Amino acid sequence: MRWSELYVPTLRQDPAGADAVSHRLLLRAGYIRQLMAGHYSLLPLAVRVRAKIIEVIRDEMSRIGAQEFLLPTMQPAEVWQKSGRWDKIGAEMFRLTDRKGADLALGMTHEEIFTTVATELRSYRDLPQRWYQFQTKFRDEPRPKSGLIRVREFTMKDSYSFDVDATGLDRSFDLHHEAYTRIFGRLGIPAIPVEASSGIMGGSDSIEFMCPTAAGEDIVVHCACGYAANVEKATSHLPVVADGDGPAAPEAFDTPDVRTIEDLATGFGVTADRQVKTLVYVVDDQLTLVLMRGDHALVEQKLIDTLAAVTVRPAHPEEIRAALGALPGSLGGVGVTGLPILADLALTGRRDMTTGANRDGVHLRGVDVARDIAVDRWADLREVVAGEPCPRCEQPLDVLRTVEIGHIFKLGGRYTETLGVTVLGADGERVNPVMGCYGIGVERALAAIVETHHDDKGIVWPVAVAPFEVAIAVLGDAEQVVAAAESLYSGLRGQRMDVLLDDRSERPGVKFSDIELIGIPYRITVSARGLADDTVEFTDRATGHTERVPLAGAIAHVTAAVRATE
Amino acid sequence: MRWSELYVPTLRQDPAGADAVSHRLLLRAGYIRQLMAGHYSLLPLAVRVRAKIIEVIRDEMSRIGAQEFLLPTMQPAEVWQKSGRWDKIGAEMFRLTDRKGADLALGMTHEEIFTTVATELRSYRDLPQRWYQFQTKFRDEPRPKSGLIRVREFTMKDSYSFDVDATGLDRSFDLHHEAYTRIFGRLGIPAIPVEASSGIMGGSDSIEFMCPTAAGEDIVVHCACGYAANVEKATSHLPVVADGDGPAAPEAFDTPDVRTIEDLATGFGVTADRQVKTLVYVVDDQLTLVLMRGDHALVEQKLIDTLAAVTVRPAHPEEIRAALGALPGSLGGVGVTGLPILADLALTGRRDMTTGANRDGVHLRGVDVARDIAVDRWADLREVVAGEPCPRCEQPLDVLRTVEIGHIFKLGGRYTETLGVTVLGADGERVNPVMGCYGIGVERALAAIVETHHDDKGIVWPVAVAPFEVAIAVLGDAEQVVAAAESLYSGLRGQRMDVLLDDRSERPGVKFSDIELIGIPYRITVSARGLADDTVEFTDRATGHTERVPLAGAIAHVTAAVRATE
Repeated sequence: MRWSELYVPTLRQDPAGADAVSHRLLLRAGYIRQLMAGHYSLLPLAVRVRAKIIEVIRDEMSRIGAQEFLLPTMQPAEVWQKSGRWDKIGAEMFRLTDRKGADLALGMTHEEIFTTVATELRSYRDLPQRWYQFQTKFRDEPRPKSGLIRVREFTMKDSYSFDVDATGLDRSFDLHHEAYTRIFGRLGIPAIPVEASSGIMGGSDSIEFMCPTAAGEDIVVHCACGYAANVEKATSHLPVVADGDGPAAPEAFDTPDVRTIEDLATGFGVTADRQVKTLVYVVDDQLTLVLMRGDHALVEQKLIDTLAAVTVRPAHPEEIRAALGALPGSLGGVGVTGLPILADLALTGRRDMTTGANRDGVHLRGVDVARDIAVDRWADLREVVAGEPCPRCEQPLDVLRTVEIGHIFKLGGRYTETLGVTVLGADGERVNPVMGCYGIGVERALAAIVETHHDDKGIVWPVAVAPFEVAIAVLGDAEQVVAAAESLYSGLRGQRMDVLLDDRSERPGVKFSDIELIGIPYRITVSARGLADDTVEFTDRATGHTERVPLAGAIAHVTAAVRATE
Repeated sequence: MRWSELYVPTLRQDPAGADAVSHRLLLRAGYIRQLMAGHYSLLPLAVRVRAKIIEVIRDEMSRIGAQEFLLPTMQPAEVWQKSGRWDKIGAEMFRLTDRKGADLALGMTHEEIFTTVATELRSYRDLPQRWYQFQTKFRDEPRPKSGLIRVREFTMKDSYSFDVDATGLDRSFDLHHEAYTRIFGRLGIPAIPVEASSGIMGGSDSIEFMCPTAAGEDIVVHCACGYAANVEKATSHLPVVADGDGPAAPEAFDTPDVRTIEDLATGFGVTADRQVKTLVYVVDDQLTLVLMRGDHALVEQKLIDTLAAVTVRPAHPEEIRAALGALPGSLGGVGVTGLPILADLALTGRRDMTTGANRDGVHLRGVDVARDIAVDRWADLREVVAGEPCPRCEQPLDVLRTVEIGHIFKLGGRYTETLGVTVLGADGERVNPVMGCYGIGVERALAAIVETHHDDKGIVWPVAVAPFEVAIAVLGDAEQVVAAAESLYSGLRGQRMDVLLDDRSERPGVKFSDIELIGIPYRITVSARGLADDTVEFTDRATGHTERVPLAGAIAHVTAAVRATE
């Protein structure tokens, strides 16, 4: 393509309000423009990259025997009501009514709709089926942000598997795991597969593929040994704290002005790891005590998962005082009855601890958690922090900011049961097929590539997804220069290369910096000076390395460089 | 692909309620399933055809220098309010509010949104720009019907051109006209370009591409000489009717029981072409008389276009009696003052005519339209009927049922003016670029191909869009048969053919009828009997012609047949 015929509105300055690197660079390099918060127009360069990403995904889906569908985005309320999600999903789902007053949803995911198609499956012989689509998804995000990373409208590759039993589902799930690993590898995204909470999908096993980036909002705990988990699920191998025996019963002592763990540590010399922190939550309307070690933080999602809760929130001070007789700062579990008490596993076996006495300004020391507190349930509730030992290999853990770029779930029979899909099993009995679902956000993947492939000059696309594989910078308008550039252009196109001919009447510096900004992997520079000794320059965007190559060998040189990346 | 790994839920019986041929065949052949009225799931075969249609369109768009974008489907009310269409478009536009209460629209067309992108254009040197996308459109059709022909959710290729002046727009328009002609040619759709009314687009020139089919709801007047127009715009060359002089003034006569044109003709011997029919309409709240020749029908769209009206409706009998003093059956324009009177051009120069006297049961004869009626405006308001002489060549006209498969408009400056897009002209003055817009409905094109390519056995896809170019029917499971079929399968794939291997354990009759039903252009049949003398059968779906070809030459034979269609 000729740059003179391509719409690339690059900006000279960084756009205001774009904090994420990908947001800033995609705006500046003329790939995207915002229509309104969470909705972006993709300009021609972005459309080219998106198409290449889609082709990579399609290729790998096809390789695991998945078949492409295209299902409606606009959906009747009835099917969501049948599955039980019409009420369960809140404001995140866009809803509307049509001219006849019928309630409709805009698809934020397609379990229900693919399941309606599956009602025609007849027999175990029809299984497995692995179905996918590239379709627009709408989600009314409370806070769209970071350009293409968190939006309200995006293209998703979503697939759904139907198997006759759990063994089949395991196979479909594993195939998707392998396909996703290949996809992110080909796209150049350093994806980390992590165990995850299943959220509203309500399945069992669930793996998220996470891309480390400062723009991410998901925290992943990661170890060089391969251990990786979302902080909502992660554990670590904490060293045992050796406690003394302590007194035979807790002893109260006055702690005026103590409000926090730190107050108690500095004022009374009780280190945080020898304190029991008492949190009060309202779990599905039930006031509940949650005990943590003083220096540990609660992960609310772990609380939700442990209790299979729908909603949790910290209790208000009035609720706490009414139940325990004291305010936060002096709370404790000793002597509490009538309220459920959860304790984090890190408190197992701990003795001689200090905690609040449920009297303002009074604490208890010498507390033996098992002896003195009526714990109803022990569970892992703690947030892992960087440097703690890996639960597998004991090496120090990393904690990374990441963005989710893929997610695979085992759903089981939930949707086939509620929507009435059965097939005849091998034993002649009718069974509900078990499902898996699997998603990749296409434009978010595009942004993740930019997050992980850029430098201070702009984007550095991997060849596999670059909008053009090579750019030809034509310096000046001397006849022989133009002729050589045109000859290279048509020669490279003849080799099926994606070539961008920068034929604009701009200064060399503008051409170089624009080609770098938009991130074309290879550049050939054609100048009168070079042609004087029959050479052109070949520049590798990623390394910045420039070499002179004979004009006659330039096409072969570029072609070899591109092919070497395949 | 192997049929055993492809989801094709063919039906043995014609589905109920599918009147259009394409609807019936696409359901029966396992291409589509309805989710709800106007919303269809595309199954794998349909996705393959759709992708090929899109590639043809993309190729031709690229050929005229158009660049691919992808703009949001969900759009803020503000931009539609600015253009004036938020209120002008009625229930056809889906609207909703988000979690913050903001008003949103789902795009039924994208003039506004492309124009917002165009605000960055700076100079006449940036023009022309021709931008397009493939994007989902939503339209709340009052009566979705005929499968994929009239739906509420569909993919549209919509393009928009921006030029500095009318000459540029003419060029962009003509290029699209040529591209559309090539596209429909390659898709095998016998498209007729016709002059059309521009409707809500509000442009000037407008051409619709119409595909003749019994499932169509648009009427097109067409002549072998090339003349073609939507009945909303079509004219014909009516023979002049020679009238006598008639009396010096109209004469009243009693016509009890006459209610219709026919009553007057049979009861009083006044042929319909000697009567003036008087219709009363309410045009944007103004009662208006519309005079037609007795045997001619009014086209309401012509009335709308003539008066630039927003709404027209027939007046109610009470409104008519209050204004004229009589009921329909005895109405006329003679002596009427204070109401606008329109007369059809076919009444030009007519004398000695008969019309109602505005007294129930009384008519007037000897009416000279120009002399006796205060006509405010003469206009072409008449519906052309089959057999009338072509306005260009005087040969008898055809009247066809058609469906619109493409539409190109000259929009002018309407959107760039209301949305504030200006560029610097060559003379240094800022000007509003003039726009064109151009659309093709992708799934409707798919249906139109089926409408025009089928027989009593099923669909007969043109090779260019067939889901597979060739099917291999494997008869039986004898080792040599399977081996020969597998060898052909991999050999044809090696030639980059789209091949479907029917490896199901079904009877030959089922395989043949399924392959015919889903419409694969070529079939190779591999059987033990054929292999006995080293041949296979080659069958052309369109002609039904079957020939035996040597096994060794089968791949070359198929490849040559497919290539011959390119």
